Amino acid sequence: MVSDFAETKSLFQLPEGLVYLDGNSLGPLPKAAVARVSTMIRDEWGDMLISGWNSAGWMNQPARVGDRIGKLIGGPAGTVVVGDTLSIKVYQALAAALEINAGRKIILSDTGNFPSDLYMTEGLIKSLDKGHRLKLCAPEAVADYLTEDVAVLLLTEVDYKTGRLHDMHDLTRKAHAKGILTIWDLAHSAGALPVDVSAAEADFAVGCTYKYLNSGPGGPAFIYLAPRLANQVRPALSGWLGHEQPFAFDLEYRPGPGIERMRVGTPPIIQLAALEASLDIWDLVDMNDVRTKSSELSDLFIELVESGCPDLQLASPRDSRQRGSQVSFHFEHGHAAVKAMIDMGLIGDFRAPDIMRFGLTPLYIDAQDVNKAASIIEEVMAKRLWDNAEYFVQSTVT
Amino acid sequence: MVSDFAETKSLFQLPEGLVYLDGNSLGPLPKAAVARVSTMIRDEWGDMLISGWNSAGWMNQPARVGDRIGKLIGGPAGTVVVGDTLSIKVYQALAAALEINAGRKIILSDTGNFPSDLYMTEGLIKSLDKGHRLKLCAPEAVADYLTEDVAVLLLTEVDYKTGRLHDMHDLTRKAHAKGILTIWDLAHSAGALPVDVSAAEADFAVGCTYKYLNSGPGGPAFIYLAPRLANQVRPALSGWLGHEQPFAFDLEYRPGPGIERMRVGTPPIIQLAALEASLDIWDLVDMNDVRTKSSELSDLFIELVESGCPDLQLASPRDSRQRGSQVSFHFEHGHAAVKAMIDMGLIGDFRAPDIMRFGLTPLYIDAQDVNKAASIIEEVMAKRLWDNAEYFVQSTVT
Repeated sequence: MVSDFAETKSLFQLPEGLVYLDGNSLGPLPKAAVARVSTMIRDEWGDMLISGWNSAGWMNQPARVGDRIGKLIGGPAGTVVVGDTLSIKVYQALAAALEINAGRKIILSDTGNFPSDLYMTEGLIKSLDKGHRLKLCAPEAVADYLTEDVAVLLLTEVDYKTGRLHDMHDLTRKAHAKGILTIWDLAHSAGALPVDVSAAEADFAVGCTYKYLNSGPGGPAFIYLAPRLANQVRPALSGWLGHEQPFAFDLEYRPGPGIERMRVGTPPIIQLAALEASLDIWDLVDMNDVRTKSSELSDLFIELVESGCPDLQLASPRDSRQRGSQVSFHFEHGHAAVKAMIDMGLIGDFRAPDIMRFGLTPLYIDAQDVNKAASIIEEVMAKRLWDNAEYFVQSTVT
Repeated sequence: MVSDFAETKSLFQLPEGLVYLDGNSLGPLPKAAVARVSTMIRDEWGDMLISGWNSAGWMNQPARVGDRIGKLIGGPAGTVVVGDTLSIKVYQALAAALEINAGRKIILSDTGNFPSDLYMTEGLIKSLDKGHRLKLCAPEAVADYLTEDVAVLLLTEVDYKTGRLHDMHDLTRKAHAKGILTIWDLAHSAGALPVDVSAAEADFAVGCTYKYLNSGPGGPAFIYLAPRLANQVRPALSGWLGHEQPFAFDLEYRPGPGIERMRVGTPPIIQLAALEASLDIWDLVDMNDVRTKSSELSDLFIELVESGCPDLQLASPRDSRQRGSQVSFHFEHGHAAVKAMIDMGLIGDFRAPDIMRFGLTPLYIDAQDVNKAASIIEEVMAKRLWDNAEYFVQSTVT
């Protein structure tokens, strides 16, 4: 374990003079990933060719890497597997959960959920054509909507816009009391704060690796399945690598044991190499230390921005215990203001209609960065630089 | 265009002394992919960070690369998009086709189809729970089973075991005459032989890029959608990047135009960099030349192996016009025999119960390689080296 985060910061490539507060959207490059990927490509793909599937351990890598991610979210070995995209993993979890709770027709989510989770749900509902319905409530009202006709509670723990943090333990307990299965999307949680899917008794959890876990653009997603459910889940996306014996090439599908059945097709080995390089850094830190530091940095950031920019309205919970690892502000000219900040060396991002988001990621962001960021924001606001922004801010990936 | 394939061969990293006849399973490394991926990682991810989605063109890369693949399979610009795995793309195509042909309940495939296509079909049928049925016939009998109760014909054009090639034009025409939609899996076709999905009037086509297209382990898949269908298809896997306006973050899904709606989640940008390096090589050749050379090499290989190894029985069609770009032999000790060949520097692979497969890939395999391969096979057979093989051949990815 490292004693402070200066050491982890040195492990990332961070462009000189830039403050990067967008690691909640795309984590920066772990320096070691360059060599790790090159070695994988040259020595494994290049030299081992097809035998890399065994000799280099590619075939089991989704489970092996799943175990590494499991450590960060409270999933014991053999409960997490890596692959596909987060949208696909949401679909797998929801399809499975709806079959287990087949007598109920309501999927409950909230208006703070990431849209793709809702879109995948809509798509599944239409395909099933069995009268399922997606019910959305306000994030703060979820507990009130946990009724006995709800099949599945599908929530993103940390709101991608505001950083508002759900209480996973409490909501899962309340859901279970009504016979509701839970699917937790950890896109903005994994690597952002301590998560314990086991202690919370979550049924399913899914997440991506390219935000706080720094695996690079399009890094694979992950899925957790509670051990008590693992062998009763029927995989809707029953691909060959989730088969009990993929290389028997049987004409009929038989699900593999436990979480293995959540695998679908051939895993993205080059992306996995980058992810492993990033997970090496996560091995060096304690998630509780990350959380403590994240709260400190976020509190400092709020304090500095609020004192310097009276026109900005905090969109995130003020209490750090109710926030993930980002801070957002409402501002009607936010789109152009973020662009002006980027031109001055502060990268944050914008989410419609008026949210400016800033990720506080202790692995590579320190108090000095936070001070610099706040100064830039203050200057943009004081000089009304958004009025000068010459071009429209392109929207970017969450 | 290159005048001969010595030039393309020099563009691949091929271990000294090895004959690699397994490019039908995992294509070898294009040398340029090492630098291409490193540059993408260091200069795009590392330096551009989140802005790479726009500045480096990541966001549109699945469509741009789709157009490049379209050229290899007869798909006009705007009809192919890249992403996910082949199993997911099969699912998307099948779910869409079954909805268009909603009055019919039979999915027709053959026993030579790759099992994952059948597994994904089984999974979808169970989820839909509407009385659909997967009917399998022998590959040579497909035309006889094209009856008016069939909704979808789902075939892999080239049999992964034997290399037997379906007549896509003829079967599609016959299927359409009965009101049947067609999904063609081009896993062993794209980059193996000329394909023209437009001329064949295929409705859907899917494929992978890590075999003949040499994109590396776990490279993304692709999907083609006939323009006449594109805007009536409802995407079952309705992920945010297939939304009409992904960055509006609406709570309701609206499909994007045409093939864009077949996108699901965040694309694997590192794998895409490797794929683009490989496609640069494909830009240098004419697929008809590749086909001519592949047939020559395959015919030579069959002739040499048959003359030297009377115990081996050809499992592939003898007429090269009825084969893809691989040659297979039946041999009861094939598993151990392939291992013995690998120890002698010839990489082929084995498929249960008794198939030894050899891919003939002109981009980097020449007549000298074929002669050497045949000599090794002859020696293994003459000396019964399979009896000596010390360890079991691990199965590898198709």
